Amino acid sequence: MAGLLALARISGLLVATLVLVWALSFRTTFLHPISTTTAAAVGGATSQLDHLYSVLHPLLMVIGFILLSGEAMLAHRWLSGCSRGTRKWMHLSLQGAALGFGLFGIWAKFKGKDGILANFYSLHSWMGLLCVALFAAQWVVGFLIFWHRGKGRRTRVALLPWHVFAGLYTYGLAVATAETGLLEKLTFLHIKRGVPRRSLESALVNVLGLALVVLCGLVVLAAVSPKQRSNKDGSIATKKAGCCYSPEDYEVCAILR
Amino acid sequence: MAGLLALARISGLLVATLVLVWALSFRTTFLHPISTTTAAAVGGATSQLDHLYSVLHPLLMVIGFILLSGEAMLAHRWLSGCSRGTRKWMHLSLQGAALGFGLFGIWAKFKGKDGILANFYSLHSWMGLLCVALFAAQWVVGFLIFWHRGKGRRTRVALLPWHVFAGLYTYGLAVATAETGLLEKLTFLHIKRGVPRRSLESALVNVLGLALVVLCGLVVLAAVSPKQRSNKDGSIATKKAGCCYSPEDYEVCAILR
Repeated sequence: MAGLLALARISGLLVATLVLVWALSFRTTFLHPISTTTAAAVGGATSQLDHLYSVLHPLLMVIGFILLSGEAMLAHRWLSGCSRGTRKWMHLSLQGAALGFGLFGIWAKFKGKDGILANFYSLHSWMGLLCVALFAAQWVVGFLIFWHRGKGRRTRVALLPWHVFAGLYTYGLAVATAETGLLEKLTFLHIKRGVPRRSLESALVNVLGLALVVLCGLVVLAAVSPKQRSNKDGSIATKKAGCCYSPEDYEVCAILR
Repeated sequence: MAGLLALARISGLLVATLVLVWALSFRTTFLHPISTTTAAAVGGATSQLDHLYSVLHPLLMVIGFILLSGEAMLAHRWLSGCSRGTRKWMHLSLQGAALGFGLFGIWAKFKGKDGILANFYSLHSWMGLLCVALFAAQWVVGFLIFWHRGKGRRTRVALLPWHVFAGLYTYGLAVATAETGLLEKLTFLHIKRGVPRRSLESALVNVLGLALVVLCGLVVLAAVSPKQRSNKDGSIATKKAGCCYSPEDYEVCAILR
């Protein structure tokens, strides 16, 4: 399990590095043609602000939303030595922060344009809207049932597998939405800005897309893997084969019972 | 389980209908501008052949690859009344057919162009290549281990959860790749062909994209749900809660033991 978590973190670091390099090294990619001209006339101040808002969208959605929610999903793993209360609090807080970053990232994308709703025409935006809506609903339901404990223990036990499945599904949808966003931006750059199809930027964004695919697989695998516990004598005990579902754990088993 | 399978089939039918309507009703979408002109001069014969090859890619990848492999994954569910041998044979055959359709779909896309390798520049093609490679490797390993039985029972039991996880992951990757393909085509149509961003075709393709998202969730949910068995008295027995992994079943539990 420790090895799997380490691999997930390494791929997460790779994703963060790639999106940062893309956002900070390819400045013209994130500038509107009109604002480039205007900015030249006013000394670059407007351009810098435009650039800031424009790069915020990929940075917030990839690092703030996807990477942070991955960490939140695995909080029950990397905090296995802590109490259940601590793990649940960390899971809830990190998911809440990820939701906040996601909403901020969507707002940043449409700032200064015709408004959010007027821009929701692409498949990327439809998928993103569905994803954030599912994520928000999942957070509210999780808060009410598993943190606030509005329901009895039996109901919580019955709902946990659904909560886990919905969380993993929303995470996968977030990654798929990011892939469409990367491809939309690259297609636009190829056709409108004349960026060559075989260029450093194209290769960088494609590698970022594949790194997200790998990250998603590792995070989901770590989340559904049975837990290992340390015995008092220091040896590692894996859960009994054949019985992998327990309400104390975090596994996608017994979805429908 | 029957309800879940029915929902998965309904969403599959919706996906098939939408991709067929798109491919057959929006003819100019799948024609190259040059071939349209040439075809007008030679009486439309070349145009019809070009159109055929061009529409084959989305049809084969969505219906032949994604929908068929979804049916194959659920063969252990909808054939629950049959013997294990029959279920395994159906699973293997349908996955083999899906792989064949997938390879044919990729070939159809690049027919008449500069060759397959020369066209692999987009994130869509990189993801598609990874997906088909994983799918082919998964099929070969599955054939050798679970059908040909090159390994002993203990090894098969140990490898089954990995086989299931890799299969579900590849299926999710196929759907994500299809989403990037739909978005790439629409972005191209908006910028190069002047298709309005708010048009019937845009809405149709976006709904197709969302239907694929729903289909993926239902198929994966049906695949990881615990099995129900009919008792001799006709009543339905769900597997004992707390023990959901069994090598006889088809669930994504006990990935790492």
